[in-house]
Amino acid sequence: MKVGGQHFRTIWLNPANEQVVQLIDQRFLPHRFVIEDVSTVAQMASAIREMHVRGAGLIGASAGYGMYLAAIEAAGSPAGAGFGQHLANAAAQLKATRPTAVNLAWAVERQLTNIAKGKSEPDWHKTLQRKVALALATAKEIAAEDEEHCRMIGQHGLSLIEQIAGKRDGKPVNVLTHCNAGWLAFVDYGSALAPVYAAHDRGLPVHVWVDETRPRSQGSKLTAWELGQHGVPHTIIADSAGGHLMQRGDVDLVIVGSDRTTRAGDVANKIGTYLKALAAQDNEIPFYVALPSSSFDWTIRDGSEIPIEERGAEEVKRADGWRDGQMLEVSVAPEGSPAANFGFDVTPRRLVTGLITERGVCKADEKSILELFPEHAS
Amino acid sequence: MKVGGQHFRTIWLNPANEQVVQLIDQRFLPHRFVIEDVSTVAQMASAIREMHVRGAGLIGASAGYGMYLAAIEAAGSPAGAGFGQHLANAAAQLKATRPTAVNLAWAVERQLTNIAKGKSEPDWHKTLQRKVALALATAKEIAAEDEEHCRMIGQHGLSLIEQIAGKRDGKPVNVLTHCNAGWLAFVDYGSALAPVYAAHDRGLPVHVWVDETRPRSQGSKLTAWELGQHGVPHTIIADSAGGHLMQRGDVDLVIVGSDRTTRAGDVANKIGTYLKALAAQDNEIPFYVALPSSSFDWTIRDGSEIPIEERGAEEVKRADGWRDGQMLEVSVAPEGSPAANFGFDVTPRRLVTGLITERGVCKADEKSILELFPEHAS
Repeated sequence: MKVGGQHFRTIWLNPANEQVVQLIDQRFLPHRFVIEDVSTVAQMASAIREMHVRGAGLIGASAGYGMYLAAIEAAGSPAGAGFGQHLANAAAQLKATRPTAVNLAWAVERQLTNIAKGKSEPDWHKTLQRKVALALATAKEIAAEDEEHCRMIGQHGLSLIEQIAGKRDGKPVNVLTHCNAGWLAFVDYGSALAPVYAAHDRGLPVHVWVDETRPRSQGSKLTAWELGQHGVPHTIIADSAGGHLMQRGDVDLVIVGSDRTTRAGDVANKIGTYLKALAAQDNEIPFYVALPSSSFDWTIRDGSEIPIEERGAEEVKRADGWRDGQMLEVSVAPEGSPAANFGFDVTPRRLVTGLITERGVCKADEKSILELFPEHAS
Repeated sequence: MKVGGQHFRTIWLNPANEQVVQLIDQRFLPHRFVIEDVSTVAQMASAIREMHVRGAGLIGASAGYGMYLAAIEAAGSPAGAGFGQHLANAAAQLKATRPTAVNLAWAVERQLTNIAKGKSEPDWHKTLQRKVALALATAKEIAAEDEEHCRMIGQHGLSLIEQIAGKRDGKPVNVLTHCNAGWLAFVDYGSALAPVYAAHDRGLPVHVWVDETRPRSQGSKLTAWELGQHGVPHTIIADSAGGHLMQRGDVDLVIVGSDRTTRAGDVANKIGTYLKALAAQDNEIPFYVALPSSSFDWTIRDGSEIPIEERGAEEVKRADGWRDGQMLEVSVAPEGSPAANFGFDVTPRRLVTGLITERGVCKADEKSILELFPEHAS
């Protein structure tokens, strides 16, 4: 999407040197637009763990590029010794960075499978070149698929917004979202925000209530920024405010993303999503989850099986912000008080009106999901 | 309660000069413990509006002392001219500071009624002295009643915690609270935290999940601080985390305060309370509201009639914290993004397990409330 009128994706290969990956270091948004060069798998693991990049799709794409960098490193070791071991280590290193996002493991496994397809030749050097080329192709493929899936989510979700717009007499459709599931969380377009961008680009009046999303403020820092850059009307609110807005009739539709959704439709997403789903149900407001199929975990049914990441307590006890031209951390709690920092919660499928995927909109139950994705039926 | 081992109330008369009120300026907590001298009604109005003092009971007590300061000022005008007019102006000024807290108007009206009881004498000067003395007595009475009511709330709420503790085999009872309804929100003891302090002082193991309560962070800044000063185990969490903790079984009981509760039991409290009530219901966890009777609005039944304060958007777009020995504000949102800042929401009585008042615990319905407070039946 647009940044200052110019089109950007969140991650790409350095055009001058395809052995270097470039990404937007999102820690400095909305205050500074920083592009980071990443040329080792260790750097990529750190970028994921320290949340230079975050969001389901972008974590997957970053892991894909991370495995490509791992293949380059492995191929560079003397006579390619331990190529497989180096890749396995890199895979483990990448997978360990964020436990909840299913796209991470999915992308890493896809790389391992595809790289393994590179047949051995008598010339070991040629074999390695082929494997690196396969890793590059796979990384590009994962990113391109993510982009296309998000574009399709936008088209399918657009019809939901159009239906509501038809009843609003030209007044804006009010969408509430939590955290950032916009293009910054993917390669482009986003999941939850893709329908919003599609509606806005089509000229439908749409306004987004943006949950600030403590403790890392992905809503106020990222969602508000990307909506603003693209010209979409929006208003930042405290995470506690959504219920009140729904009671007042100021929310027409909730759309959130997902870090992992089970095959039966339970949804892990940023901590606090469950509370908004409860409020939507209590006020009879549709609650949709937008996700590419890469965010499904086909191996589990019950959301209670999803591991929930606990992050450092200091994120809750401080706020990071901008002052006098620099990023500053301030303390917002007593030194001696403990804090707990759960990254995600699980919204049970009974609270989800529907899932918006690249193949269409379906109910949040196993039968409906498998009608769209029959290849995962067994 | 205790601050560094010494007993404090939140507001008191300067022992050296009874024409000056002293209060804890809570804006600097938990980082600095600042005592402010207040000697005019304008200063008191500003202290309430700018939230040097906040919380249902403390706003009432501050308004009571504010009217005492207004009486002193009015009596000091030439020959007491316009005494009544000055008081009426002061009453309007104080009432306009915070629209949601019912204790504010309640305390101001009580002062006007009592001051009016000071009979006119031939000596106008004596009449004024008598009126000022009545205002002082009333201010002290409001504060003393608030303290005693909170103490009694603690005793009645204690039995709820004792019941749960009996089933926990010595493991701590986990109480979740939102915002600050501790002693800092009243003159002493608090409402929601009074039962917690009573349980802790009785030796029952109790642990409090403290919602940080954006945007002003009264949870992490005030609740965590006062619990820590009194030695009560607690953990700060993001406002979004409570639902997840309830799903995990880590919350036994929710207790919150109230800024205004209707005679039928609808509860206005800090924005976000409604979301916690929904989550408590969804997880079959008891949800109690602790309030002195001064926080009832006997004139209305339906919570939708309660005016909801909207505060400045900049509170949502920034964070105030401590760094390098000073308070600093940092920006956490794009400059150009609008924000909305609703101070309170209304939790409908159907979500409230019970009300803890100074006269006992009752259900959140008009009949049960009036059984405890029959004087308000008509």
